[in-house]
Amino acid sequence: MLTSIDSLLNWDERTYMPLEAGPYRAEQITLLSGVIHKRRTDPRIGQWLDELFDSDAARDRHSDPGATIHELKREYDKRIKLPQALVEELARTAVLGQQAWVKARQENDFASFAPLLEKMYELKREEAQALGYSEHPYDALLDDFEPGARTAQVAQALAGLRTELVPLVKAIGEAKRRPNVDILKRAFPAALQEQFGKQAAAAIGFDFQRGRLDVTHHPFCSGVGPHDCRITTRYDERFFPSSFFGILHEAGHGIYDQGLRPDWFGLPPGSYVSLGIHESQSRMWENAVGRSRPFWQHFFPTLQRLCSSAFGDVPLDDFYFAINSVQPSLIRVEADEATYNLHIIIRFELEQALITDDLQVADLPGAWKQKYREYLGIEPPNDADGCLQDIHWSAGLIGYFPTYSLGNLYAAQFFEKADRDLGGLSAMFARGEFSPLREWLREKIHARGQCYKASELGELVTGQPLGHAALMRYLRGKLEPIYGL
Amino acid sequence: MLTSIDSLLNWDERTYMPLEAGPYRAEQITLLSGVIHKRRTDPRIGQWLDELFDSDAARDRHSDPGATIHELKREYDKRIKLPQALVEELARTAVLGQQAWVKARQENDFASFAPLLEKMYELKREEAQALGYSEHPYDALLDDFEPGARTAQVAQALAGLRTELVPLVKAIGEAKRRPNVDILKRAFPAALQEQFGKQAAAAIGFDFQRGRLDVTHHPFCSGVGPHDCRITTRYDERFFPSSFFGILHEAGHGIYDQGLRPDWFGLPPGSYVSLGIHESQSRMWENAVGRSRPFWQHFFPTLQRLCSSAFGDVPLDDFYFAINSVQPSLIRVEADEATYNLHIIIRFELEQALITDDLQVADLPGAWKQKYREYLGIEPPNDADGCLQDIHWSAGLIGYFPTYSLGNLYAAQFFEKADRDLGGLSAMFARGEFSPLREWLREKIHARGQCYKASELGELVTGQPLGHAALMRYLRGKLEPIYGL
Repeated sequence: MLTSIDSLLNWDERTYMPLEAGPYRAEQITLLSGVIHKRRTDPRIGQWLDELFDSDAARDRHSDPGATIHELKREYDKRIKLPQALVEELARTAVLGQQAWVKARQENDFASFAPLLEKMYELKREEAQALGYSEHPYDALLDDFEPGARTAQVAQALAGLRTELVPLVKAIGEAKRRPNVDILKRAFPAALQEQFGKQAAAAIGFDFQRGRLDVTHHPFCSGVGPHDCRITTRYDERFFPSSFFGILHEAGHGIYDQGLRPDWFGLPPGSYVSLGIHESQSRMWENAVGRSRPFWQHFFPTLQRLCSSAFGDVPLDDFYFAINSVQPSLIRVEADEATYNLHIIIRFELEQALITDDLQVADLPGAWKQKYREYLGIEPPNDADGCLQDIHWSAGLIGYFPTYSLGNLYAAQFFEKADRDLGGLSAMFARGEFSPLREWLREKIHARGQCYKASELGELVTGQPLGHAALMRYLRGKLEPIYGL
Repeated sequence: MLTSIDSLLNWDERTYMPLEAGPYRAEQITLLSGVIHKRRTDPRIGQWLDELFDSDAARDRHSDPGATIHELKREYDKRIKLPQALVEELARTAVLGQQAWVKARQENDFASFAPLLEKMYELKREEAQALGYSEHPYDALLDDFEPGARTAQVAQALAGLRTELVPLVKAIGEAKRRPNVDILKRAFPAALQEQFGKQAAAAIGFDFQRGRLDVTHHPFCSGVGPHDCRITTRYDERFFPSSFFGILHEAGHGIYDQGLRPDWFGLPPGSYVSLGIHESQSRMWENAVGRSRPFWQHFFPTLQRLCSSAFGDVPLDDFYFAINSVQPSLIRVEADEATYNLHIIIRFELEQALITDDLQVADLPGAWKQKYREYLGIEPPNDADGCLQDIHWSAGLIGYFPTYSLGNLYAAQFFEKADRDLGGLSAMFARGEFSPLREWLREKIHARGQCYKASELGELVTGQPLGHAALMRYLRGKLEPIYGL
């Protein structure tokens, strides 16, 4: 419950907090982290968990009590390895780091942010040592976000995806048909974007009686309670996909949060499986649903009415092609579905090198540019659109990025299975019916909480192990026809 | 510092929290109150304070270290008298009570709120017993808001004021000149009201780099950190004084908070003296400044430009008369300066009767109506505009109301002295200069924190003991000319 209070402090910091309140907020969060860590590492809790672990209740690891005992013990055993001072220092550095990052990004000033980033990596190396690992220090950090996953496995999965993706992206680059993306750059007032985004988020099932939408620098979704899930966005009045698909994405996260069992809030049966599974939900609603033609058969007339100056004269098919344009670009959160994973692979490789000290923070801007040239054929003109674009590292979220790609892989597998189970989602979307998919996800994924590991849940739901075949089928099925390949 | 986190939980609950998140928020606040109480009543703190109390540092009670030791010891000695379970139950009941109150007020349904109010009074009686008192159980509760004040003294002060006020209000009621208050009821869009309110709040010195203005049901001001002070309001598009003077009022509180020394944040030298002194600041900016003619000489042209459809054809003097209209009314927060204290006296008497069990909660609506008939000559047609209009009791703030009237008394005394010291505030206001008064208050009151008790500070600053003469001079000086008495 104190963790949910921490979530509110963070949400507020990134939405409404006055400018000069930053340093004290860092102190508040630091203090609270200390109180939380102290309570969670209370030796009495360790004793109770040891006793419970030997009881009958723990036998079935997939039952509610069994999962509770196993997960809490896993967490406890990890936490007691971390010194209190390190936990507090990490929390403080994360808040100060995020504040420095906001400023550095605005002013395109990597140098002002570098000392905090160095400090953060130093602390994360300490954390990896304290936690221990068998193969790679990165394993220890990855486990926080994708419990049970290993660096080597993730590297292999992403390499497999890349092998098939690169030729597809290349073929698209050479295709003669090109979308007219300029139609997406027409003026669209933020207030109307908000209205439309909220309408769509509510239609796919985000419950505004139990949640909110606010404005922030770097969009996120935060659960502040079992009936309090807050999503955020930022508006660009000259490029509406940036906020609209961002809202669908965060609403996808929010629908997962809102689908967790409230009576188990904060405990494993009422918690999400992993960030990869969480991301599978956001990416599915954003892309498989939100960038589908049937979705826009339903919503495009509304959009045209709402802002006819921008969309009144646009044919649906031109719009559909434009929002599915594939084009190597600099900003991850605005990347298309096909090139997105290349952005992830770059970050995944760089953070491994930073954690092992094979790359120095001072050399990060150069290394970043080099990899973008190599994988995407383009180079950022500045750090603001380069290595300063993401909040993650400033907040200590190292080992987080690969979960985005795992999310894409899981999303494609889940969506394919749901489509088969429910007998054709397209016709439903075209009628504005999103509840069958949502209820399917609720039953198969949300309601199960953390009773299965990500890879177990994937197999249980789809009958298939994690792989990239479904994602490639999905991308080819959509992109080859529109690009005339 | 945990208290400031609690402030954020409360602020959020009353501004942005989703509807269904209420019960869990109650649990969060309850848990945090428990953690705070446990830390504050740690016997080691008692030992330290005992040792410090005997040290040289404690000798001068008005020095920073002396005030710190004396105030913290006073607080500690009070707190250890309260059982942990009672503290937690009070916190939980306060949150649930406020939620029930919002609903009950909207639906004019006192019966749905009554059980929680009964529970609250029961707990407050327990609290008074646990704290102890020499004369009246109400003393124990009053001390939380106005440290050192006694029920009997307050009752006497208010009686003195009433004696002079009643004939003045009566004379005004019989005056031939009447203001045209309909000009205040012209349509004025909320967005423009917000813009104007923010401009005025900033002009008198509320710092928006260190604060915010948001919307709520029942306006309040909350300090979330040394550089994070949040004020709130509610907009009535057909009666702008309700939000505008509300904003000035809360900004007055905020200017006090922002004038406290940040390096002593959360400790006595960086804390406010009492609610009475806090209210003296809000009432001074709201009334002595905000309802003065010179203030509007400066601001009225701006208001006329901003909403010419409402004010373009209104002469300044008509406007000035209208915002200073005196008229017995039902809603305390919208009452004029002259009748305001009668609203307070009613609440002050009722809460004393409720705490001593001389009045039952079930009989409150009737007793409320009777007192309004008796003191103000009017009777509320329903409970929403009667005994359900204030949030205080639902939140456990019993003993709080009289501090509003103490605030009016102090405000008049301080303002009279500032006017003399600074050589005529009117001319400054007419030029839009508010910083001389603000800096005077900062030096004489804000920067002194809690180093003096309210009555000591009053005498130190004005050379006079607390009394009602200054307030009566101020009211007569303003009201007699405009009503032609």
